[in-house]
Amino acid sequence: MEAERRAPAGASGQGTAGVADPDALCALDATRLRTGLAAGTLTATACAEALLARCAALEPQLQAWAFLDPVLVRAQAAAADAVRAAGAPLRALHGLPVGLKDVVDTASMPTENGCVLHAGRRPAADAVLVQRLRRAGAVLMGKTVTTELATYASGPTRNPHDPRRTPGGSSSGSAAAVAAGMLPLAIGTQTNGSVIRPAAFCGVVGYKPSAGMIPRTGVLVQSPSFDGVGVFARTVVDAAILAEAIAGDDGRDPLARGRAPPRLARVAGAPLPRPPVVAWNGQPAWRRVAPDARAAFEALASRMGWCPLALPAGCDEAYEHHRVVMEAEIAGSFESLWRDGAARLSTPLQGQIERGLQVGAVRWRRGTEAAQALRAGFDRWFDVHGLDAWATPSALGTAPEGLASTGDPVMCTLASFAGLPAVGLPLLRGADGMPLGLQLVGRHGDDARLLRTANWLMEAAGGVLSAPACAARRGRGGGAGR
Amino acid sequence: MEAERRAPAGASGQGTAGVADPDALCALDATRLRTGLAAGTLTATACAEALLARCAALEPQLQAWAFLDPVLVRAQAAAADAVRAAGAPLRALHGLPVGLKDVVDTASMPTENGCVLHAGRRPAADAVLVQRLRRAGAVLMGKTVTTELATYASGPTRNPHDPRRTPGGSSSGSAAAVAAGMLPLAIGTQTNGSVIRPAAFCGVVGYKPSAGMIPRTGVLVQSPSFDGVGVFARTVVDAAILAEAIAGDDGRDPLARGRAPPRLARVAGAPLPRPPVVAWNGQPAWRRVAPDARAAFEALASRMGWCPLALPAGCDEAYEHHRVVMEAEIAGSFESLWRDGAARLSTPLQGQIERGLQVGAVRWRRGTEAAQALRAGFDRWFDVHGLDAWATPSALGTAPEGLASTGDPVMCTLASFAGLPAVGLPLLRGADGMPLGLQLVGRHGDDARLLRTANWLMEAAGGVLSAPACAARRGRGGGAGR
Repeated sequence: MEAERRAPAGASGQGTAGVADPDALCALDATRLRTGLAAGTLTATACAEALLARCAALEPQLQAWAFLDPVLVRAQAAAADAVRAAGAPLRALHGLPVGLKDVVDTASMPTENGCVLHAGRRPAADAVLVQRLRRAGAVLMGKTVTTELATYASGPTRNPHDPRRTPGGSSSGSAAAVAAGMLPLAIGTQTNGSVIRPAAFCGVVGYKPSAGMIPRTGVLVQSPSFDGVGVFARTVVDAAILAEAIAGDDGRDPLARGRAPPRLARVAGAPLPRPPVVAWNGQPAWRRVAPDARAAFEALASRMGWCPLALPAGCDEAYEHHRVVMEAEIAGSFESLWRDGAARLSTPLQGQIERGLQVGAVRWRRGTEAAQALRAGFDRWFDVHGLDAWATPSALGTAPEGLASTGDPVMCTLASFAGLPAVGLPLLRGADGMPLGLQLVGRHGDDARLLRTANWLMEAAGGVLSAPACAARRGRGGGAGR
Repeated sequence: MEAERRAPAGASGQGTAGVADPDALCALDATRLRTGLAAGTLTATACAEALLARCAALEPQLQAWAFLDPVLVRAQAAAADAVRAAGAPLRALHGLPVGLKDVVDTASMPTENGCVLHAGRRPAADAVLVQRLRRAGAVLMGKTVTTELATYASGPTRNPHDPRRTPGGSSSGSAAAVAAGMLPLAIGTQTNGSVIRPAAFCGVVGYKPSAGMIPRTGVLVQSPSFDGVGVFARTVVDAAILAEAIAGDDGRDPLARGRAPPRLARVAGAPLPRPPVVAWNGQPAWRRVAPDARAAFEALASRMGWCPLALPAGCDEAYEHHRVVMEAEIAGSFESLWRDGAARLSTPLQGQIERGLQVGAVRWRRGTEAAQALRAGFDRWFDVHGLDAWATPSALGTAPEGLASTGDPVMCTLASFAGLPAVGLPLLRGADGMPLGLQLVGRHGDDARLLRTANWLMEAAGGVLSAPACAARRGRGGGAGR
């Protein structure tokens, strides 16, 4: 953590309302920032300085960053401003700061995967998604804290709404940094619930695309059957813009092969042809949802007219299949680390690897075949019922107290197992005043439709928890929402 | 086996040289048949009758067919002739008879997979490749004998050049039927050496495309990492025509995803821009090649100016990886059959399943990763050396005596493991006068280039063993060639 504490430079003298105020600038979503950058009322340098100042102020408490070098950030911002000054057409993410979970390889910054055995690791090349972010004009802010190898053992990050609570994981730093106004956009990954859950606990938008939409080349391999890249943002349209910029076959990730880059951003912001048809139901883990979360969810479901609907066959068995396949793949991915330094891995991860080493190839295949079958079952389910989305709570409740655990991913397992797209929306609050996430799950490949439904719902349900957290503690009246 | 023995009808009165003679017609390649069918000098009915008559005469000895119903064949041929009579444009395989290995699902014929436990099995739907053959206008002749579940235990088929010898396997019936003039074209599958080896033993052209080129939907799943559809024909261009008609992503086979249908036939028959650069070498199994096969191969290599070249790293380990991954996948594919009726499976297959059930998921993954790495190594190897093909013997020698074994696939394992395209050419003869195969292997995805090189070589090397075998025994002077 090298963020400087000096006053932001370059943010002064902007004419746009709010932009002259660094804290207000930190509260803007990416679309508004982009408007200012395109109009010339905001510079990438001003934007970066405001965020760096906020990082410097909040990081000692939040611990969201694994690596942040203001020198690198300023150089990229200056380059973006030079591009605009030279009159070049602005790219999709021109000048927009993006944080990267520290499992995404970067040649210009360390990538330590949240693992002491990878301390000081310096990849030779950028991940494909990083190359695409650079080409899209993004300013790569730095690397955000991940749990150990994107599994369960927590990093130091705290929840920006309450430092005694977990931000969720494994994309802990990305979710917390966006929630705290350190960043408008960040990259995460999800193998079970590592995007949707921290988005819920931190009160931001999280989006895990359909399996294969974003190539994972250069991203830590944990469980190749389920690993997926996801994004964090303040709005659904912002999430769509970021995902679109990095989506599409790269010729190297087998899951991405043959998948053209989808058109997400335009569709996500488009009006609906009719009110969406949304199902909700008592998935197997439903009985474990906290009463306040359940009440908040059911009140919204009732108000929106969502219909209860039984899930397709195969959901009950999916959790065990997911665990077995994931542990077998974790064992395959981390076996050599474990052989070299098991004692330096967390006890839970050692257990996962040891169990995973016992899984037979035939058992693994049954699990992956069940995942394919469940996806096909969901395809039919969405089609037969004409559904736009399936709604669930994003997690069992609000962020649990303590930092030892990042919470339970169970509400995200079915979508991860079947490779379905999911969007987490900060629409609800728990009895403790903390954010509660609402998850919308879509048909595989129908990401644009899902995002459009989610965007519509954010407006229809009337609330967005977009004001940065932690601001309240600095006297700015944060935590707005319903 | 229901082929009738009555004299062929409809073959008389054709003006084209040779076409009036059913046996001469059976010796024609598909391209020549197509020319006659297009010109109207030959009807699909005449063609089918000639082949049916030959099947009736030879089948008692050869045992190439698992199912052949002349009624079904005649109906398709009549339909093809009606299409032409109605003036519709002729399709790629209009009126051409094609045999299907009995692991390819057909709704109109049984599909028993060479397994007593599947006796009488009747699929609900055609395999995707069968649908494509039908749309291309092919006449589906019937189902050819496969070994047990496309593994090692032989079927009843005999080698048409010598009934005391194996035709090779697992695509035994397809290779033997094409070699014997029962068919101009047939479909097979290869997981280790099941197309290239029987093509070599029977003296026909065999072509196993790059992994993923032809979708396997509706084909017996044995070892999904390595299973591939291949073809048998009398010429390289015929093989290209048949493969092209069934290639391309079907949206269901994950290996085929994103692969556009290649343009094989036109390129295969095109002239070379320069003489091809072909490498040959002592792959690990080379020391086991029989002296006569080695001498014949080396004489050709010397005559053609092929260069010895060390193979890329990873070949030595590939055989064991291939075996372990294949057995693990065979276990996964046939575990339920084995649990229900192990005693009715062959002893070798029981052993494969029992060994495969012991393979761990991590070990399996190491093997599949090694296969990907070897493919990448071969990519670089072909590129760095500017190679058109890598030449090897197709098998360790000519067809072994006896029907208990279908021979050793070891010379085909590397291409199967790495998913490289391979063409088997009947260019050589052993000391016993039996056909010896020459295998050309190409870079993954460069199938058209490989076929063009193979087609060039067939002419440049000056010999094609295209006259139907068994003809000699009927006084027709078969077995022509060098």
